[in-house]
Amino acid sequence: MKQFSSFLVISLLIILSGALGGGCSSATENKSKEEDRAISVLMNRKSVRDYNENMPVKKEEIETILKAAMAAPSGRDIRPWEFIVIDDKETLAAMAGELSTARMLAKAPAAIVVCGDSIESFYWYLDCAAATQNILLAAEALDLGAVWTASYPYEDRMAVVKKYTNLPDHILPLAVIPIGYPVGKQTPKDKFDEKKIHYNTW
Amino acid sequence: MKQFSSFLVISLLIILSGALGGGCSSATENKSKEEDRAISVLMNRKSVRDYNENMPVKKEEIETILKAAMAAPSGRDIRPWEFIVIDDKETLAAMAGELSTARMLAKAPAAIVVCGDSIESFYWYLDCAAATQNILLAAEALDLGAVWTASYPYEDRMAVVKKYTNLPDHILPLAVIPIGYPVGKQTPKDKFDEKKIHYNTW
Repeated sequence: MKQFSSFLVISLLIILSGALGGGCSSATENKSKEEDRAISVLMNRKSVRDYNENMPVKKEEIETILKAAMAAPSGRDIRPWEFIVIDDKETLAAMAGELSTARMLAKAPAAIVVCGDSIESFYWYLDCAAATQNILLAAEALDLGAVWTASYPYEDRMAVVKKYTNLPDHILPLAVIPIGYPVGKQTPKDKFDEKKIHYNTW
Repeated sequence: MKQFSSFLVISLLIILSGALGGGCSSATENKSKEEDRAISVLMNRKSVRDYNENMPVKKEEIETILKAAMAAPSGRDIRPWEFIVIDDKETLAAMAGELSTARMLAKAPAAIVVCGDSIESFYWYLDCAAATQNILLAAEALDLGAVWTASYPYEDRMAVVKKYTNLPDHILPLAVIPIGYPVGKQTPKDKFDEKKIHYNTW
C-alpha cells in the first residue's frame, strides 16, 4: 500500500510538471509557432550593411538562398533570372570602389548579383525583384544579413556590374546583394501605415 | 527499500521515455526547425487559383498580410506602395469578367491590389514587386492561397483595374492578388536550375 501511494505521488508529480510548462507544446501550438516564425522572418528582414569579415558564408547557405530565389513566381513561367555568386575579394573590393551605393561590398564575404534576360521576358525585372526579395528573406531566415543595392534601372550602375561580371548585352543586372553575418544588433523598421490601406475603392 | 527501488524504476522509465523521442526537442533543434519552417514557406509558395468560396479570409489575416507587405524593402525608403483590399463580391466578379488572366477573382473571397505612386518613385514597381512577394509568402504562411496576376506593365489591364478601384492617374496598379483558402492539394513547382548559377563571372 505504501509502495502504491508513492507511485501515485510520483505519477501526480509527473503530470503536474507537464502541465506547469515543463512539457512539450501541443501540435496546434507548434503549428501557430511555425506560422509565427515564418511571418516573423517577413517582418524582421532588414537592410544589413555591416558584416563580420571573419565569418564566411557557407556554400550550403548560398545554395539554400539560391533555391529560395528560384522558388519565386515568374510571369508565364519564363524564369528569366540568372545569378552571379561573387566571393572573389578583389572583385568585391573593386565593385565597392565604383558603386557609391554598394560600398559595403568591400566588407562582405560574398554577394549575389540578380540578373534577368531582357529578351526572354520584357518584364524580367519583376520576376527578378521577387527572386531578390526571396534572397533577402532566406538570408534573414539563416541569420545572415543582406541588402538590396539597385543596379537596374540605373544605366551607370549596370555598366559597372556588367564590366566586372562579363554579362552579355541582353542580360541586365537588377540588384547586387552583399551577404554576410551581421555585425552588431540590427533591428527592422516598423513601416506599417494604415493610411496606405483602402477598402474596395481609393 | 522496496519503496526506494520502485521510485528508482519509475525515475528510470521517465528518463528513458524522454530519451526515446517522446520528449521535447532541444533549443538547437527548435532553432533549426524554425529556420526550416521559414525556408519552407519560401520553397512552398505556389500560385493558387481555386478557392473555397465558403471560407472567408479573416480581417486579422488580411491585416497580417498587409503588415508583411509593408515590411518589404523600399529604395531610398520612399515606400511608394498603396493597397486596395477588395471583398465586394460584385466588384470581384466584374473585374474577373474583364481581366482574362484573373478569372479566378470570381471565386476569391478577397483580393489585394498592390499599387504604386509613380510620382514619388520612378521605380515604384520594384518596391511594389517586393511587397507583392511578401503578400504571397504571408498567405502561404497562413495556409491561404494566392496568385500574382499582373496589371503593370499592361496598359489595358491597368485601365480595367483603375476603373473599378477609382485610382488617381499617378497611382498605378502592379498586381491584383486574389486570396482565399485553397481547394484541393496544391504543390509548388521545383524550379531550381543549376545552370542559372554562375561563379564570379558569366
